[in-house]
Amino acid sequence: MGADGDARAAALGGTPGLTRPRAAIVVTGSELVRGDRPDRNGPWLAQALLARGVEPARLTVVGDAPAELEAALREGLAHDLLVCSGGLGPTHDDRTVELLARAAGLELRLDEALAAEIERRSRTAWRPGIRKQATLPAGAVVAGIAGTAPAFVVSAAACVAIVLPGPPGELRALWPAALETEPVRAVLGRAAPRSRRVLRFYGVGEPAVAAALAAAGGEGDGVEATVCARDFEVHVDLLVEPGAEPQAAERERALAAALGPALFSRSDAPVEALVLEACRARGLALATAESCTGGLVAGRLTSVPGSSDVFVGGIVAYADAVKTAELGVPAALLRARGAVSPEAAAAMAAGARTRLRADVGVAVTGIAGPGGGTPEKPVGLVYLHASGPGGAERAASLRHPGDRETVRARATAAALHLCRTLVTEL
Amino acid sequence: MGADGDARAAALGGTPGLTRPRAAIVVTGSELVRGDRPDRNGPWLAQALLARGVEPARLTVVGDAPAELEAALREGLAHDLLVCSGGLGPTHDDRTVELLARAAGLELRLDEALAAEIERRSRTAWRPGIRKQATLPAGAVVAGIAGTAPAFVVSAAACVAIVLPGPPGELRALWPAALETEPVRAVLGRAAPRSRRVLRFYGVGEPAVAAALAAAGGEGDGVEATVCARDFEVHVDLLVEPGAEPQAAERERALAAALGPALFSRSDAPVEALVLEACRARGLALATAESCTGGLVAGRLTSVPGSSDVFVGGIVAYADAVKTAELGVPAALLRARGAVSPEAAAAMAAGARTRLRADVGVAVTGIAGPGGGTPEKPVGLVYLHASGPGGAERAASLRHPGDRETVRARATAAALHLCRTLVTEL
Repeated sequence: MGADGDARAAALGGTPGLTRPRAAIVVTGSELVRGDRPDRNGPWLAQALLARGVEPARLTVVGDAPAELEAALREGLAHDLLVCSGGLGPTHDDRTVELLARAAGLELRLDEALAAEIERRSRTAWRPGIRKQATLPAGAVVAGIAGTAPAFVVSAAACVAIVLPGPPGELRALWPAALETEPVRAVLGRAAPRSRRVLRFYGVGEPAVAAALAAAGGEGDGVEATVCARDFEVHVDLLVEPGAEPQAAERERALAAALGPALFSRSDAPVEALVLEACRARGLALATAESCTGGLVAGRLTSVPGSSDVFVGGIVAYADAVKTAELGVPAALLRARGAVSPEAAAAMAAGARTRLRADVGVAVTGIAGPGGGTPEKPVGLVYLHASGPGGAERAASLRHPGDRETVRARATAAALHLCRTLVTEL
Repeated sequence: MGADGDARAAALGGTPGLTRPRAAIVVTGSELVRGDRPDRNGPWLAQALLARGVEPARLTVVGDAPAELEAALREGLAHDLLVCSGGLGPTHDDRTVELLARAAGLELRLDEALAAEIERRSRTAWRPGIRKQATLPAGAVVAGIAGTAPAFVVSAAACVAIVLPGPPGELRALWPAALETEPVRAVLGRAAPRSRRVLRFYGVGEPAVAAALAAAGGEGDGVEATVCARDFEVHVDLLVEPGAEPQAAERERALAAALGPALFSRSDAPVEALVLEACRARGLALATAESCTGGLVAGRLTSVPGSSDVFVGGIVAYADAVKTAELGVPAALLRARGAVSPEAAAAMAAGARTRLRADVGVAVTGIAGPGGGTPEKPVGLVYLHASGPGGAERAASLRHPGDRETVRARATAAALHLCRTLVTEL
């Protein structure tokens, strides 16, 4: 970076040559390192750190082997920030505190006031356990107590360590208090928190979005960009340094100009929430008719709190007899065109509207596999239809081979997006 | 461990003082370390290693910062086995091979035959990329190619490294070939593969299962046991050394005796598959009626391939008008007892049977929250009912506060288990 670059970095609030603080996350739990249960804390902490302008550099998951945990903590202490979760219980195989102190070269000290507080909260009076949990590395600042386990922050040479309990609910509850401690505030003060802009696209591939982003200026000038395909959408995240808002706005404008029709949201709200919001704003009641997705579209819609004021219900019409009896799809149509056909999808959507007395009906029928495919109608073939008031109709189809789970998830996303398109244009 | 212990360990096929091979897993991907996307490879590899008798000792996720990746690889090489995923692409920021070679002190060599093979498979003729992907550490054994990325195995001092591509489908496809390479076979030969027994319980808590396991002999004698609460069930895994089958069988017998009614499965098949199988065996057609779960029960049932020969369909009756019109729940009943009541659940189950012409109907109605709760009917209150032929009826209720997602997931699991109980007793 030359003098111009330095000047620009300074103007943008960044300091040339100074990298943003980097963090290591260490998660302990034998069920996690063995893959018995997914680690929910690591990804959550990574996103929470990013939001504060700290770069998550590594995430290590270890079991309860002491040497492995100590090594992971030692490696973590080589970063600006170390966040640990788990291993704070009262028994001998909860070793995070003891091993962190050893790795950091800090003495352990019993905090008598903390012991009294833990005893007050404890349902048992098992003194060795209470004394163990009240023994912290020298200089530790207690950020709060979950159950009987104290969360704390301690400085060790150039690193600040945040130690949190393993249960995700407890970890998330104590996180804000840990951020408010003096040592952590000092680290965060070196991290220019970036603002974030999100653009979400549907109906366009990741490479096309990446190319449009590159043409729009790509990364740099205080804007960091990631393109990520998720849930059959493509998400662009712009992380914007203080002062770089104009550059970010210009990229956003260029992306919208290049990919206009595919850009459907600038928020994190899931598409089912956008569908419900669009219906609510227009006073429309919504119903579903599902075959291959088997209730997943209704399941996503009803995952949103308050969905009951828009969504009235749905029919899962797996058997053809149910399509006919409950949705009024003519048996002759099913015989002539098949249950997986644009005509069946349209009749199902109409049936959902009339039978469930809704304003908008959305229908899905397709072949999820692994069996049931033919050369004419292969696994992955899905027909979708949305039907609204005043003769509004929208149809779509998918032809993507895949496993059963993927075909169903893709069809569910497609149904929600088709419904969004229909309703937002009403 | 004294002389007796040594003798027993030898008799069980274990070698006293010799620990089973330990593995490190290193996953690279900036979207993974930032928590943008969950890591699917680490847990999958951990379980695959465990099944082969190798202990997963640590899982490290790093981004594309070279120093961080190199450090993680170096730490991983301190284990008997190192499994890496990701960073094998053709561009400069795919650095796994180069950094592994550096960490292991191995030279990089261009494999001309491999380059020709990659060029044949490649849709482009970008020679620098092809040459990069065909350049491997000295002594590497190619296990297969995914796209244009070779998976390989290489020995470095006391460690054997397995290098696999990042996309989960490609990684899983190449894994068996990597296990068949000579260096990996040598490591696996030191790992007495353990057999696995699984016992799954529903309707009993993790502490009670842990206590019963301890009373049944707990761990030791060549049997390693884990107790894990998952999806509102409690799973006990017994990992059994060669020769320790009698001890494992005795623990299994004692657990079954202690917790009999709660033990519902000795396989990994999900409960929805057990429900479908039980219906199929009895020639029964199945239908659902859902309020608060909004289609999730039907969604789980239809996730199983071949479900269409048992499951005919379902009604998602979110609005009361739909409960009345589509399921025949009397409006007077809804007025008198409320939609969240045992009576409404029973009427919904009966309605699912009759309206959808099924033999078995299962119904769920409850308060998922966060709004809608009252002191008498709080968030988390759920009524379930299953109805079968010949007057078979089963009812259940839940009263667990929780967030919307948890209440719905718990109710879905409860509906499936209620249905399983009803049908298996027919």
